[in-house]
Amino acid sequence: MSLAHTNTHPSAPATGVTAPAGFSAAGVPAGLKSTGKNDVVVVQNLGPNFTAAGVFTSNRVAAAPVHWSRQVIADGRVDAVLLNSGGANACTGAEGFGNTHRSAEHVAQLLNISAGDVAVASTGLIGVQLPMDKLLSGASEAVSALAGDQNASDQAAAGIMTTDTVPKLTSRLVGDSTTGQVIIGGMAKGAGMLAPALATMLVVLTTDAVLSAEQLDSALRSATAMSFDRADSDGCMSTNDTVLLLASGASGITPDIAEFTAALTDACQELAAKLIEDAEGADHTIAIRTFNAATEADALEVSKAVSRSNLVKTAIFGKDPNWGRVLSEVGTTKAAFEPDELNVAINGVWVCKNGGVGEDRELVSLEDRNVSIDIDLNAGSEEATVLTNDLTHDYVHENSAYSS
Amino acid sequence: MSLAHTNTHPSAPATGVTAPAGFSAAGVPAGLKSTGKNDVVVVQNLGPNFTAAGVFTSNRVAAAPVHWSRQVIADGRVDAVLLNSGGANACTGAEGFGNTHRSAEHVAQLLNISAGDVAVASTGLIGVQLPMDKLLSGASEAVSALAGDQNASDQAAAGIMTTDTVPKLTSRLVGDSTTGQVIIGGMAKGAGMLAPALATMLVVLTTDAVLSAEQLDSALRSATAMSFDRADSDGCMSTNDTVLLLASGASGITPDIAEFTAALTDACQELAAKLIEDAEGADHTIAIRTFNAATEADALEVSKAVSRSNLVKTAIFGKDPNWGRVLSEVGTTKAAFEPDELNVAINGVWVCKNGGVGEDRELVSLEDRNVSIDIDLNAGSEEATVLTNDLTHDYVHENSAYSS
Repeated sequence: MSLAHTNTHPSAPATGVTAPAGFSAAGVPAGLKSTGKNDVVVVQNLGPNFTAAGVFTSNRVAAAPVHWSRQVIADGRVDAVLLNSGGANACTGAEGFGNTHRSAEHVAQLLNISAGDVAVASTGLIGVQLPMDKLLSGASEAVSALAGDQNASDQAAAGIMTTDTVPKLTSRLVGDSTTGQVIIGGMAKGAGMLAPALATMLVVLTTDAVLSAEQLDSALRSATAMSFDRADSDGCMSTNDTVLLLASGASGITPDIAEFTAALTDACQELAAKLIEDAEGADHTIAIRTFNAATEADALEVSKAVSRSNLVKTAIFGKDPNWGRVLSEVGTTKAAFEPDELNVAINGVWVCKNGGVGEDRELVSLEDRNVSIDIDLNAGSEEATVLTNDLTHDYVHENSAYSS
Repeated sequence: MSLAHTNTHPSAPATGVTAPAGFSAAGVPAGLKSTGKNDVVVVQNLGPNFTAAGVFTSNRVAAAPVHWSRQVIADGRVDAVLLNSGGANACTGAEGFGNTHRSAEHVAQLLNISAGDVAVASTGLIGVQLPMDKLLSGASEAVSALAGDQNASDQAAAGIMTTDTVPKLTSRLVGDSTTGQVIIGGMAKGAGMLAPALATMLVVLTTDAVLSAEQLDSALRSATAMSFDRADSDGCMSTNDTVLLLASGASGITPDIAEFTAALTDACQELAAKLIEDAEGADHTIAIRTFNAATEADALEVSKAVSRSNLVKTAIFGKDPNWGRVLSEVGTTKAAFEPDELNVAINGVWVCKNGGVGEDRELVSLEDRNVSIDIDLNAGSEEATVLTNDLTHDYVHENSAYSS
């Protein structure tokens, strides 16, 4: 995936979860964050359809809201989502699950829907019970503030931020004037602990397309596999990762599913790139592309291994085009390659050729934020790219000082 | 393994590679290091036996000396070892392998032995050819300086240091006055890039026991599996890791093999602990013990996963007893456990009980260098301990400034 994305349509729609027809949202400050910033968010699907799909952390120590939302999504219907920052509700036992249940019931009553159709997502410190009085009154306030305009999208995106420095929103148009157009909107948070198979990352995607829960599930799994699963900030996987896709059907249009999946994938790649660009304490965004691999799995294994190397990541922070550390990491994988046929380019300079010294490393500039590492396995024609960051003093500072 | 080791015998022998009878060694400055410190080392086995075993990096991008020494060790005989710091001779192609061959021939000529019995080990920057004139004249000087005293052991141990701050030596006695005693000696380097399955780590172990190459191989594999394979500084695996065990037979005694293996394991655990204690930029040495596991493999998987978490490592640096990050990492493994039956102690305080909040985390002091994390899987009776460090500003500094 590339590092920069822009809306491809000239008349780009509003962005965020309220961009598609049939959705309202709100984000309010409820006092869960000590900063007084937005921390409770509600997103409501106004229909006429309520199909939905979800992808959750594969961490076996999953937070209460993950357990809850997996149940909610099982029947393919979600009417509303309650999200909060300022507390992960993970490792909180039966009381924590009861609190998630109670908060879903609360929102359901206010919206006159079933609690079994209210998904919940939380992010923040692990091992602490949520302050339920604040959460519930915040949820009430958010429901009162529900709106379908751009400000509602912005407030909602702000409300799920933790150490993120900027809110992250996206939108895509699918189709043309002949077929009719549907819209995809979305928001994401997650400025650290990003890892393949998802990581402290909350994402809500919305669309006004008419699609079944099965179609949404298939499109979402395909999109996340090519985006969030290939963004790895620090190799750590969270207890709370949640990606939800809700469809209102308000456009009355069923898009071509391949075209919809491609646009959804593109939107997810934009959000994934924004997450990596805003990762805790990073100076560089590094795109690690492995190509000429025997299989895509090989390419992915190599890119992921390199993306997890603290030695590669500190070298990039130090503006050191240290291809030896890249090769050393490639050597730990099971991918098909011959060591003396490996080529590595850093920012386009082939510093390693045939497993040895290549072009002059002095030609490599690592001043820019964006860095590319290209690894030629010389073993086939498949490729995969993984995004990661450098490992910096600020990363150490933020993660030694911020309890999460 | 425990963090502190002392020689268990009251009349502890001299330490290092010349502690056993039948060995001489030397370390000299040859100008490979810009600091002018020792950088070329020779260890000679004076016999009467010349049996040997070796364990090497599993990195497929292995350095030239690793390829060479694997061939040397294949027949179970090693007469001498040439080691250098100041250059890894990795990713150096046919020229690099030729240089290793040439340096072995050089030492062989000087000692009047076969080049095929001269093992070579190198450490330092990857992707740079060794300055052969300096290396060969250094080898000549080292051969001239070969001696069997404590100073020879000390000079040799100093000569393999890179970013190590202290030389690392060990020795053990095996047997008693009835059976007769044999001695194990050893030295190690490797202050960064330590990882399971070995990592920029050079270790030479010597013994005056009478043991076959097969017995040495079995004992060495058992010892390294319980020591160096369970020391993981930063999850990175080097291209150059080499552990050699040479037996002179000069004692004339064949020890009980179980007793010998236990002593060798203990010696390797001491060296592994010393490597972790001296790892680049570390403030804390962390012993991660997983117990009550269904299998030893489960225990090892969990301890290794936690030892590789940058979030756990930065938390310990920040003196934050963040058990949520430990649980989150446990949840990424395939080990048998139920999330609500997990218990975690940090420095003896059970901050997590039954997957949730346990004793008051304020009771945990993380002021001392040594930290213990105990993870109770409640799923069996097996256990395993992995040593690692915290992730500090100094780690980032050293690894962004030092090219390796």
